[in-house]
Amino acid sequence: MEDVIIESIEEPKLANPILVVGLPGVGNVGKLAAEHMIYELKAKKFASIYSRNFPPQVFVNEDGTARLVSNDFYYIKAKKQNIMLLTGDYQGLTPEGQYDLAGAALDLVSKYGVKKIFTLGGYSTGRKTNSPRVFGATTDKKLVPELKKFGITFSPGEPGGGIIGASGLLIGLGKLRGIEGACLMGETAGYLVDPKSSRSVLEMLRKILGIDINVEELDVRAKQMDKVMAQLEKMNKQADKPSAEDLKYIG
Amino acid sequence: MEDVIIESIEEPKLANPILVVGLPGVGNVGKLAAEHMIYELKAKKFASIYSRNFPPQVFVNEDGTARLVSNDFYYIKAKKQNIMLLTGDYQGLTPEGQYDLAGAALDLVSKYGVKKIFTLGGYSTGRKTNSPRVFGATTDKKLVPELKKFGITFSPGEPGGGIIGASGLLIGLGKLRGIEGACLMGETAGYLVDPKSSRSVLEMLRKILGIDINVEELDVRAKQMDKVMAQLEKMNKQADKPSAEDLKYIG
Amino acid sequence: MEDVIIESIEEPKLANPILVVGLPGVGNVGKLAAEHMIYELKAKKFASIYSRNFPPQVFVNEDGTARLVSNDFYYIKAKKQNIMLLTGDYQGLTPEGQYDLAGAALDLVSKYGVKKIFTLGGYSTGRKTNSPRVFGATTDKKLVPELKKFGITFSPGEPGGGIIGASGLLIGLGKLRGIEGACLMGETAGYLVDPKSSRSVLEMLRKILGIDINVEELDVRAKQMDKVMAQLEKMNKQADKPSAEDLKYIG
Amino acid sequence: MEDVIIESIEEPKLANPILVVGLPGVGNVGKLAAEHMIYELKAKKFASIYSRNFPPQVFVNEDGTARLVSNDFYYIKAKKQNIMLLTGDYQGLTPEGQYDLAGAALDLVSKYGVKKIFTLGGYSTGRKTNSPRVFGATTDKKLVPELKKFGITFSPGEPGGGIIGASGLLIGLGKLRGIEGACLMGETAGYLVDPKSSRSVLEMLRKILGIDINVEELDVRAKQMDKVMAQLEKMNKQADKPSAEDLKYIG
Repeated sequence: MEDVIIESIEEPKLANPILVVGLPGVGNVGKLAAEHMIYELKAKKFASIYSRNFPPQVFVNEDGTARLVSNDFYYIKAKKQNIMLLTGDYQGLTPEGQYDLAGAALDLVSKYGVKKIFTLGGYSTGRKTNSPRVFGATTDKKLVPELKKFGITFSPGEPGGGIIGASGLLIGLGKLRGIEGACLMGETAGYLVDPKSSRSVLEMLRKILGIDINVEELDVRAKQMDKVMAQLEKMNKQADKPSAEDLKYIG
Repeated sequence: MEDVIIESIEEPKLANPILVVGLPGVGNVGKLAAEHMIYELKAKKFASIYSRNFPPQVFVNEDGTARLVSNDFYYIKAKKQNIMLLTGDYQGLTPEGQYDLAGAALDLVSKYGVKKIFTLGGYSTGRKTNSPRVFGATTDKKLVPELKKFGITFSPGEPGGGIIGASGLLIGLGKLRGIEGACLMGETAGYLVDPKSSRSVLEMLRKILGIDINVEELDVRAKQMDKVMAQLEKMNKQADKPSAEDLKYIG
Repeated sequence: MEDVIIESIEEPKLANPILVVGLPGVGNVGKLAAEHMIYELKAKKFASIYSRNFPPQVFVNEDGTARLVSNDFYYIKAKKQNIMLLTGDYQGLTPEGQYDLAGAALDLVSKYGVKKIFTLGGYSTGRKTNSPRVFGATTDKKLVPELKKFGITFSPGEPGGGIIGASGLLIGLGKLRGIEGACLMGETAGYLVDPKSSRSVLEMLRKILGIDINVEELDVRAKQMDKVMAQLEKMNKQADKPSAEDLKYIG
Repeated sequence: MEDVIIESIEEPKLANPILVVGLPGVGNVGKLAAEHMIYELKAKKFASIYSRNFPPQVFVNEDGTARLVSNDFYYIKAKKQNIMLLTGDYQGLTPEGQYDLAGAALDLVSKYGVKKIFTLGGYSTGRKTNSPRVFGATTDKKLVPELKKFGITFSPGEPGGGIIGASGLLIGLGKLRGIEGACLMGETAGYLVDPKSSRSVLEMLRKILGIDINVEELDVRAKQMDKVMAQLEKMNKQADKPSAEDLKYIG
């Protein structure tokens, strides 16, 4: 089988689109942000990527239909900034798979003239906070002061271990093709889905792109998560702290 | 080596064949059902797939001959419905291998005009039952009400984790090629070979395809398994419960 | 890099050669037997295979020179039967690698007209014995009675788990190319290098091929191993039994 | 994606260059030595290799810029001996990846006429010493007496397990292409970054190549490490010895 199957649904014509990426990862910050944008901005799906680098798996929808796991491309026509969005069920399962998928995604969006990428993710500081900071890293030095103006935090040497996965790879490989890139990472405790962190990231993106995104829905989810966390803390006082593994899929 | 070696034994001419798939998996429900069909309906093998995605292994037959592990294709000429069957020793060892094998299988059956696939498998509910339900999932929405009429259970969001392995992949990848697909999953405790669950699945398939399959042999095996399970339960009362790992290959 | 690099040292002209294979494995029975044949019959190396399916490793010889790990082909010109021998440092590290290497080896020996393969290995019965039996399995039914006449044991359904690795794969894949094959497995306790088992296998091969091989050297090594094992047993009476892992490389 | 992306920065013209390799490994001896040469001899980067055999990762620099993990090639024009240097963030993650990367590196330097390779690494003797020996291994027998004259240790059968990773592979694969190679291994305890061992290796290289390298900086780092080790020993007297895993990244 080819490494990647691209199913084209529509071939949108967009002037100067940028790519925003939110795939599953730490605290699911990026994926949640991307899904929120798709919902609020009524993004339209125009392509899906299926790949042997994903698990051999179908998900079953509420109506009994099954769909093969995928990464999906959406677009948003907006006055200030046309946007392409990439989100999906999984990142590539292996390092090689990550590279192959990032390469395929860059091939696809390059055809549409994408020259700039923002990848969204979480940065696990282990610290619980009500106003998560958004850390930045960019493959283009001149973007550092620009992003700082919007309130993005650049902290020398952070994240210490670099950025692992699609968020780093897409801007790293993009740079080799002459595509500007920045990664915006919402601070998160890291082991729970973190809508509060996604909200912080989206607010930054809103300012950077000059687009309007309603984040109320994320506030609702954030409050639900606050209750879950309060509940968990209460439980922790009575018993051993549940492991990160146990909690990862809550929320 | 090529990823897949196809050994062609015969090139059957069949009008409008469908593909039924029963590979090793949860409770071996699918494989047992497929083997039963091969036996009862005197299916003829027409092709074997050997692949670097299987273990590097030969099995030794009773007569001292060795045969390389494989997946095998059979056909059944029947008045109501011509059938191709896929079963075998293993599923692909890696995610990539699963995709490659599913792609090769779809290539092969497409040449024979297959436009519809039923994959058979087990769904591990952890619940012991004398009348296992058969759950369904399909890549074609219009099949949901059709299958419900035959008694297939569609339970919103079940299986929760989707369907992992060839049973899901073949219908998922098939859909991308315009092939209709449904997965029929027999309810099973999951850690023992489960002929009772296979029987349930086959009875559903019998109704759906309008063919006759004698399932008495499976009843015999089911009774043997009931004895094994009763024996195990007795042992469990005296000792620690054996792990799923210990029991997986019994039966 | 290509999957396999073949370094050709010489292109021997041999009438009707057969291939004998002894690679590392259970009790190192096969490899030890092959190395003994190379030594006793003054076999000449004619080709080496280097491959990305082996570890990225060089071995350092006594004289300070380093050599890349490999599999190596030798030949023996003999009146009764010309022989090609395959032995080496490793088997392929992954299932895919095993298939690729077996394919490459078959490609190579097919060029020299090899139509029959004997793979040598160990069969771990866990039983300690002074006269290890030699079990057989073959891809060609008519070889069963022939081999039985020489004293090869064919025990229905043994080895139960089939034959895993190059010994099985080479005859399994060979059969698909019209090459006859048999695997001769010396009974062994399995966790120590077992010259006694190699000796049994070689004596069978000697009878089958009608060639003369002096096995005295193996008797010497077998006696040394008997002392090691007696020593180990004494130690075991005083302490916990050392794990198979600990002992595997002794001898 | 291709297995390897080569980013060419400059195409240096060098008469008779040799290649010196220092990649991450045991005690980081080789990498530290290579980085020291780059710094002291003002080496210029002329090419980078990006590869799906590395982790999918960017590192974040002090200034907020992100760079994709890579292996990098430098050159030094010197009167006595033109030098190409290979160092980088990682070795290939898998055996296959190691072979592919070594193949790509050899392809690249062969274009520049490299006919001799020195790979630098550590040899973990587990022994703490103030004057680490430098062990040698070479793919060219005539280099053994030459290197011995400079004080390189050739100890029969050492290292016992051979040389695993790029240091061994590059000279092993190089030999198949007619490139002379030697591996110089600094004795090291192995679990801490070891500038003292790097210093020993560089002093040998200095003599062999007839070039001048100031190693004072390494003396400073060695003294810092001595303090770290003294501190650790003090701690070990009070508590359990920390595992090699814990200490590996200190320094």
